Amino acid sequence: MDIEQDPAYQQMINGELYLESKPLSDLRNDVRTKLMKYNLIADSNERNEKIKSLMKSVGDRFFAEPTLYFSYGVNITIGNHFYANHDVMLCDEGKITIGNDVKFGPKVGLYTPKHPMDPAVRRTEAERVAPITIGNDVWVGGGASILPGVTLGNNVIVGAGSVVTHSFPDNVIVVGNPARILRKNEPQK
Amino acid sequence: MDIEQDPAYQQMINGELYLESKPLSDLRNDVRTKLMKYNLIADSNERNEKIKSLMKSVGDRFFAEPTLYFSYGVNITIGNHFYANHDVMLCDEGKITIGNDVKFGPKVGLYTPKHPMDPAVRRTEAERVAPITIGNDVWVGGGASILPGVTLGNNVIVGAGSVVTHSFPDNVIVVGNPARILRKNEPQK
Amino acid sequence: MDIEQDPAYQQMINGELYLESKPLSDLRNDVRTKLMKYNLIADSNERNEKIKSLMKSVGDRFFAEPTLYFSYGVNITIGNHFYANHDVMLCDEGKITIGNDVKFGPKVGLYTPKHPMDPAVRRTEAERVAPITIGNDVWVGGGASILPGVTLGNNVIVGAGSVVTHSFPDNVIVVGNPARILRKNEPQK
Repeated sequence: MDIEQDPAYQQMINGELYLESKPLSDLRNDVRTKLMKYNLIADSNERNEKIKSLMKSVGDRFFAEPTLYFSYGVNITIGNHFYANHDVMLCDEGKITIGNDVKFGPKVGLYTPKHPMDPAVRRTEAERVAPITIGNDVWVGGGASILPGVTLGNNVIVGAGSVVTHSFPDNVIVVGNPARILRKNEPQK
Repeated sequence: MDIEQDPAYQQMINGELYLESKPLSDLRNDVRTKLMKYNLIADSNERNEKIKSLMKSVGDRFFAEPTLYFSYGVNITIGNHFYANHDVMLCDEGKITIGNDVKFGPKVGLYTPKHPMDPAVRRTEAERVAPITIGNDVWVGGGASILPGVTLGNNVIVGAGSVVTHSFPDNVIVVGNPARILRKNEPQK
Repeated sequence: MDIEQDPAYQQMINGELYLESKPLSDLRNDVRTKLMKYNLIADSNERNEKIKSLMKSVGDRFFAEPTLYFSYGVNITIGNHFYANHDVMLCDEGKITIGNDVKFGPKVGLYTPKHPMDPAVRRTEAERVAPITIGNDVWVGGGASILPGVTLGNNVIVGAGSVVTHSFPDNVIVVGNPARILRKNEPQK
């Protein structure tokens, strides 16, 4: 089954409240099992080629230090020349779109799921997501968290340990919890 | 030996200054070795059943993404319908008690140990702990840290990347470092 | 080849802009492969002896819970009686020097690399580093991040989840993002 034909997948990706269907659950289980195996491959070229094959689209020069985790993979699009240090987590219940020349430090987390606010609904495991979009030339420092719905422009630098709760435009350095603009950082001519 | 009969275990669990005894050290080593093995089991049912067996008491519908770590396991009580995303760490030198319908995002850490403030005492490896108690319907966002002695009521939502240094009552959303109440969140009728 | 003779290594360690050379890349790949293997050794003595052998200098009584990661190892000097809980990351592109009787909680990250601010330079993968120096009797709480160029004096306590952006003198407790002094903490007589 093409997962894009699954009604629950359609609800998920459209930002509607959804329950994980059997096809989604099967996909997630398959990805989990494969990532456990692939993350243990010592040869970096082989490891990264296999991990790439689980994502929707990944450009040239992809490199992830072990361990890289994600939920489904099919919602992740990454441009050329991506680097992730150890223990990066991409929660791709929602779409995660990453530009070219992006670097993630160790322990970075991108979180697209928004569990319902009402406990009775949350208990059903229904959830909703919001996409995350990262521009070109973005550098996210170690241990930073990017929250659902965030868009980062081009040439954004996120300080280590920051918690990014809302979107930022091009050419800024953001730091803190919640992250705020520390200063502008225009490219040099 | 029943670990609960160990004098050092009794001191530990009573919040007194203690040194890790041989029985405690043996238990920790056994748990470490088993967790290394169990976390690599691809089948999620088998993996989670084996991990459950190392904890004091865990209800129905327990699911942890790999890798879940804890120190001894014997101090962890978890209710029904628990979900932990990747790389959750439960430092259960002190008691960790978790209610029903609780979700932890990736990279969440619960830390019960309080190393002594005086360096000469700290150097001896003596330490003291304080328990952590989590109510029902709690959702802890990715990368959040919960500190020794914290009690969270029912239906508490902890924002991603928050550092929870003190206790909070029912029905609140807390965020930040240190975490503060963002707003009330009463269940809908 | 002795890596210390490599011109790129010399630039790196001197805080100059450098590009990773073939010898540096080979070393990093060798360390990555060995760490993947060593971190899976169940016997703690064997695991820690093997991990120690990859670092420049490590004193007596070294213990790291799995998984400990670092980049090259050759830039790490650790004194006696070191303890790291699970999932500690030491990014030792720059020198990391750690005193005696130091404890790191789970998920602690020490980050020496400073990627260039200009995106066109960053894209080339050129980077610069600044060393991190940790005194004696330092305790770094779970999930804390230590940034490039930071020196911590003796008997510094870093609260869980803190982001340490600048240096601190002896005998202080620092917390927050960015970390600030919470209070003095003189040793007892």
